[in-house]
Amino acid sequence: MMTDLPLDHVRTLLAVVDEGTFDAAAAALHVTPSAVSQRVKALEQRTGRVLLVRTKPVRPTESGEVVVRFARQLARLERDARAELGMSGAREPTRVSVAVNADSLATWFLGALTRVPEEPPLSFELRREDEAHTAALLREGLVMAAVTSSPDAVSGCSVRPLGRMRYLAAASPEFAGRHLDGPLREALAVAPVVAFDRRDELQDAFVRRVRRGRGGASAVRHFVPTSEGFVAAVVAGLGWGLVPEVQADPLLSAGRLVPLAPDRTVDVPLYWQQWKLDSPALATVAEAVAATAAEALRG
Amino acid sequence: MMTDLPLDHVRTLLAVVDEGTFDAAAAALHVTPSAVSQRVKALEQRTGRVLLVRTKPVRPTESGEVVVRFARQLARLERDARAELGMSGAREPTRVSVAVNADSLATWFLGALTRVPEEPPLSFELRREDEAHTAALLREGLVMAAVTSSPDAVSGCSVRPLGRMRYLAAASPEFAGRHLDGPLREALAVAPVVAFDRRDELQDAFVRRVRRGRGGASAVRHFVPTSEGFVAAVVAGLGWGLVPEVQADPLLSAGRLVPLAPDRTVDVPLYWQQWKLDSPALATVAEAVAATAAEALRG
Repeated sequence: MMTDLPLDHVRTLLAVVDEGTFDAAAAALHVTPSAVSQRVKALEQRTGRVLLVRTKPVRPTESGEVVVRFARQLARLERDARAELGMSGAREPTRVSVAVNADSLATWFLGALTRVPEEPPLSFELRREDEAHTAALLREGLVMAAVTSSPDAVSGCSVRPLGRMRYLAAASPEFAGRHLDGPLREALAVAPVVAFDRRDELQDAFVRRVRRGRGGASAVRHFVPTSEGFVAAVVAGLGWGLVPEVQADPLLSAGRLVPLAPDRTVDVPLYWQQWKLDSPALATVAEAVAATAAEALRG
Repeated sequence: MMTDLPLDHVRTLLAVVDEGTFDAAAAALHVTPSAVSQRVKALEQRTGRVLLVRTKPVRPTESGEVVVRFARQLARLERDARAELGMSGAREPTRVSVAVNADSLATWFLGALTRVPEEPPLSFELRREDEAHTAALLREGLVMAAVTSSPDAVSGCSVRPLGRMRYLAAASPEFAGRHLDGPLREALAVAPVVAFDRRDELQDAFVRRVRRGRGGASAVRHFVPTSEGFVAAVVAGLGWGLVPEVQADPLLSAGRLVPLAPDRTVDVPLYWQQWKLDSPALATVAEAVAATAAEALRG
């Protein structure tokens, strides 16, 4: 059981993972490398599992990740308790680390952070990550929460729906005149397309729907892996693409983008995943995120 | 010598690295897994080096990276030759993969791509990466070129300077009134600050200069790892930060940002690194990038 783990040893394991080597952890903890090594070995005997892969830098095993996450949660609870007891000075703001998908970060997410009261001081550490990586960050305890399109709760986390982000297929008027002048289902098979990265399947899914399953988008395909860069590339006429409604609306009004199939929108549901942890700081942020999402996203 | 390497085996090694496992590479190449394994072993005997770490997914060793890069360059030369011979159909655009630092991608870089002629068709694959990772991507051959602040040529690459990106310390007027009302050298030690990520040292370097070496920026520090999100966080009043001049100028004119120390700007030189490779596609892109940078950056 977790409560039977020697907590000093758990902290030592965390230091080794964070510092990368036994020597660096020893320096950070002001003990000898051999003491660090003995504590990790004792912890491995206690748990009956190998916890670290002894590479450079070391990596936690799957069992090690469980202990490392426990260590991070422990550190956070301790910090929260000290803050509530008035023991932490102004120099030690509580850090709240959150993974956010790129389109949320580019549109509504920062608005949520400005709603969080300035006292007690928090430091936000945002990470822009895709779904696959987000689950690993939550599992390893490197982030406490995430805005993600994955509804599958990472072990030890709770999930709540935030709303749906709507995407519209759009292109610059000039691009549409040159490449999309004809039946859409033919044109989309060959017109240059912009995608976020190799894992972005939104555009292909859209084309398959329009073409009733007959093949995806063109092989002339540009990858632009920032949310704002993606929109800028579509506006610049490098290709067509699926643009978040909130980014597309002003550009459509200004005539810088035209919609390709206004009746065929794509909705992506978003979720808030967070550690099951009674942290006031995290609760404050979760509340601000939910309130902002309720206004910015579709219900 | 490279030219003595059995080229089929070199291609097989690349497939194993790209697909992640011997089985997946075998499926992609339409051969048996045992044939894949034998080719890799033969290549390792020929080179006298271990080329793959047999993890899941497999990883190339340092020697393996050299062969993998050679394989990618080989594939590119072959594609270019086929294109020049008119052998590649419209379905196979030449892919040009470039790593770009976040601030360049958010400001001037996309303008360069719109200058590249549409014929012959190219597909751009952009990767937004920091310096450390960029060198690895060039070394492994995962990108052919990079916009980076590192002047140190990656082995096998050439380097040319593009110009300097200028940064200004700025904050929202409301934030400046509340947190920076007094001597800057005192205020900056405690005022909340926005940084890109943990490796972003621009803000601390600026504070040390203003404070003549006496300590860095405040511990109340928000990490916002997109270029546009960073600027939006400063405008929203989460903290002060160093904003690229091109992004700051319109916001300063509109009164949404105020400069903190207009005479103390920070210049970051940028470089173009690319494979030493006679690829017409890459040369076209390099030319467009250099021309756009000459206009957008300081000389």
